[in-house]
Amino acid sequence: MGRVPRMADALERLKERLGEVTDLGKATRILSWDQQTMMPPAGTGHRADQMATVQRLAHERFTDPEVGRMLDELRPLEESLDPDSDDATLIALTRRDYEKAVNVPASLRAAMTHAAAEARPVWVKAKTESDFASFLPSLERIVELKLQYVDCVANGAAERYDVLLDDYEPQTTTAEVRALFEELKPPLVELIAELRERDVDDSFLHGDFPPDRQRALSHEVIELFGHRPDSWRIDPTEHPFASGAGRDDVRITTNYHPDSLESLFSTMHEYGHGLYSHQQPKHLERLPTGGPCSLGIHESQSRLWENLVGRSLPFWRRFYPRLQETYPEQFSDVDLARFHAGIHAVRPGLIRIQADEVTYGMHVMLRFELEQDIVEGRVELRDLPQRWNEKMWDYLGVEVPDDGHGVLQDVHWSGGSIGYFSTYLIGTVASVQIWEAVGRDVPELEEHVGAGEFTPLRTWLGEHVHALGSKFSPQETLRRATGSTIAAQPYLDYLRRTYA
Amino acid sequence: MGRVPRMADALERLKERLGEVTDLGKATRILSWDQQTMMPPAGTGHRADQMATVQRLAHERFTDPEVGRMLDELRPLEESLDPDSDDATLIALTRRDYEKAVNVPASLRAAMTHAAAEARPVWVKAKTESDFASFLPSLERIVELKLQYVDCVANGAAERYDVLLDDYEPQTTTAEVRALFEELKPPLVELIAELRERDVDDSFLHGDFPPDRQRALSHEVIELFGHRPDSWRIDPTEHPFASGAGRDDVRITTNYHPDSLESLFSTMHEYGHGLYSHQQPKHLERLPTGGPCSLGIHESQSRLWENLVGRSLPFWRRFYPRLQETYPEQFSDVDLARFHAGIHAVRPGLIRIQADEVTYGMHVMLRFELEQDIVEGRVELRDLPQRWNEKMWDYLGVEVPDDGHGVLQDVHWSGGSIGYFSTYLIGTVASVQIWEAVGRDVPELEEHVGAGEFTPLRTWLGEHVHALGSKFSPQETLRRATGSTIAAQPYLDYLRRTYA
Repeated sequence: MGRVPRMADALERLKERLGEVTDLGKATRILSWDQQTMMPPAGTGHRADQMATVQRLAHERFTDPEVGRMLDELRPLEESLDPDSDDATLIALTRRDYEKAVNVPASLRAAMTHAAAEARPVWVKAKTESDFASFLPSLERIVELKLQYVDCVANGAAERYDVLLDDYEPQTTTAEVRALFEELKPPLVELIAELRERDVDDSFLHGDFPPDRQRALSHEVIELFGHRPDSWRIDPTEHPFASGAGRDDVRITTNYHPDSLESLFSTMHEYGHGLYSHQQPKHLERLPTGGPCSLGIHESQSRLWENLVGRSLPFWRRFYPRLQETYPEQFSDVDLARFHAGIHAVRPGLIRIQADEVTYGMHVMLRFELEQDIVEGRVELRDLPQRWNEKMWDYLGVEVPDDGHGVLQDVHWSGGSIGYFSTYLIGTVASVQIWEAVGRDVPELEEHVGAGEFTPLRTWLGEHVHALGSKFSPQETLRRATGSTIAAQPYLDYLRRTYA
Repeated sequence: MGRVPRMADALERLKERLGEVTDLGKATRILSWDQQTMMPPAGTGHRADQMATVQRLAHERFTDPEVGRMLDELRPLEESLDPDSDDATLIALTRRDYEKAVNVPASLRAAMTHAAAEARPVWVKAKTESDFASFLPSLERIVELKLQYVDCVANGAAERYDVLLDDYEPQTTTAEVRALFEELKPPLVELIAELRERDVDDSFLHGDFPPDRQRALSHEVIELFGHRPDSWRIDPTEHPFASGAGRDDVRITTNYHPDSLESLFSTMHEYGHGLYSHQQPKHLERLPTGGPCSLGIHESQSRLWENLVGRSLPFWRRFYPRLQETYPEQFSDVDLARFHAGIHAVRPGLIRIQADEVTYGMHVMLRFELEQDIVEGRVELRDLPQRWNEKMWDYLGVEVPDDGHGVLQDVHWSGGSIGYFSTYLIGTVASVQIWEAVGRDVPELEEHVGAGEFTPLRTWLGEHVHALGSKFSPQETLRRATGSTIAAQPYLDYLRRTYA
């Protein structure tokens, strides 16, 4: 415009560029949501091209050397600003992401995308047929590329696995997570040993639950928790997830199994993810600092609504009559105490996504440990099934009958997502700390839940967690919200209090 | 990769670039479809940003000087190829589009998008309140920018309106369309005068039509016409449209008005659009030559299924019993002859989208003439309502009670779509020529329609129209399909045969 570019201009230009990249990310989310909910199935081929193109352009726009020049130009401004300010945190986060992203050659990125796309159907078949050997070559290729990726960006990392973890839980080291998990493991193993012997009746949770009524109930729960119907939608999918394209375009999905009540808890879980998106800071909407902080913090939100609210006695005191009305055949003879005990049954099992609150952590630790072994070359990939089965026996006392119910059960590795699993447990642990922090500020929290009054909880989460976006690291976010970084004890105390 | 780029490489690079632009176009279509069918309403703000970004990037990638260099490089290859070949037509079409697109400054394009976005809600309100004066400033802005656009790309055009027409009906001049319309006008005026006096009973087409049953009927028609369910979907929207993101991702919509059967004919109409997309040439899928030829050719497909098939006696001989079964209260006392006469009632009216087959053309001509007056500066925009009303009286003998039912009725101008309307009538006229060409090749066409056997028709359209994509101009496409460029007589004969 004829003016000499000044620093404020560089900041505006950077925000404009990041806005563009954010828009492309949101467009990709809608394309992916559409693929999983609405797209005619034969459209898969077209959609792969469309998504690859949008993602590649987003990457090119972000790793454009021009972004590097803007960041250089902005260094003096960044240093002059309050480090907690919106602009300083934006520049710092962008620099961090940029430096990681530019180190990855486009050819490697393309190869990784390609390998994942090829591995997916191979994994689906291998899982169905419990045939690990047929998946092994795909996994080898994925791991080979992942290790190349680590080589590109490992600069300064204490452990190679740090690089992968950082993609999902930024600024968090393997050592930190390992320390947390080591603290959790012995008490969890002990608790499981103690609880597995108990005979808890939860037979009423299995039976005939017509999906129509599940759907009505899921919508009722979401309404009770609180949402603006003009900003949310809920649809059925094979695997539940939360997505969307902004504060006012929140989409959650669930799966109405005709023989279980899973959908109810999974809806509460996805509601927590959805609320996090819905309450993200409006003024940072098209910026990376406006997005979620990490997968761990995201999961803390979903687990809070699913477990701390959704399995609590106050909630069910209010909601159980509705469940009884909805499924009288199942619940008219079951009193609240029996029901509440039933949704807290502890049963070590083979499948992570079906695991109860207590055994869940062991499934995560097993994967976290095996992934480190893979990255550090301490295990041959062909030996993974055996190592998996040994750990399942050691941690949960469970015998794995076949690889379909063992090492092949999760989709993550086939998609190249190595480093992801620990965030499930990080979030679960953090959810208790956050819940207790809410309780300190809102002493009547349980009464509110019992009265179906969720505004104070939503507001607290909005102000103390969601409003921070990703301005700060996950640990700093947690510290600001709760007064403490992640800690095992509150979670262990909660489990003992609730289950023992 | 270290090789000296050769011409074949330039062609590959061009195709790759065009593939990218095509992907972004398809992504935009899905974002727009989603907005109109699925998006939570409050998501509008986010969506505008996302679509603007994807569209701007598509434009930037296409008008990149690198594309110009590839086109220069490819000139010798183009000249050496058979001009009808896939590659020669691709290079020629791309050059044509590129030269038009690069002449439009990004700032003007942004201003046009912006003006349209701002004008839309102003128009909605003005239409509701029948207040043309409140829309006038928005329209002035839109026309001003449109005239600037004409100045940028008018290079060599005989008339300024040619430039706008060409955006929707490429390589077609205003003079050609004017000649066609001048030939249509007197016989149409005469036919309307003759038919308006007739007393045709169509009261049974208005009444109580529960949407659920309309929906079932619409799906049944689509199934009868033929579609692959794994490649299509049909959803309800306020205004029916066809969209999608590829041959195997075809999406049509309709609107189930509880008091009319409009949805049935609009579903047949959108089916025609959908089938055109579904049968586009697979080998040109990510290329501009694979796309539809023009809006006129697109409309010829929808009008063919809606009118030539969907209002025909053979079709209703087969399908009328189903309609009677579905709505016995409405149709049990109405015999096929009365019903068939009813769906051919001619009644000059105010609203284009509700017009019958015979009067429809006059609505289009009125707009085509007014638009030329606007572009040539022969009318002050503030005088548009008066000019509109005069023409409605002259052409249809209809008195316009207010601007909401007159000059404000269509969305097009508020979105900057000037030059669009004539394609509706071009397509309608062409649909009869195409229908007759099918009849020459498939003499048992009427028997097939009566037997609900649509494969021969679909196949003929696929081979003679759809497979050509946009390799050739609309007129050349029509000539290849039917042996003749556009002609008024077959259409006039059809109307006279059917209505008189």
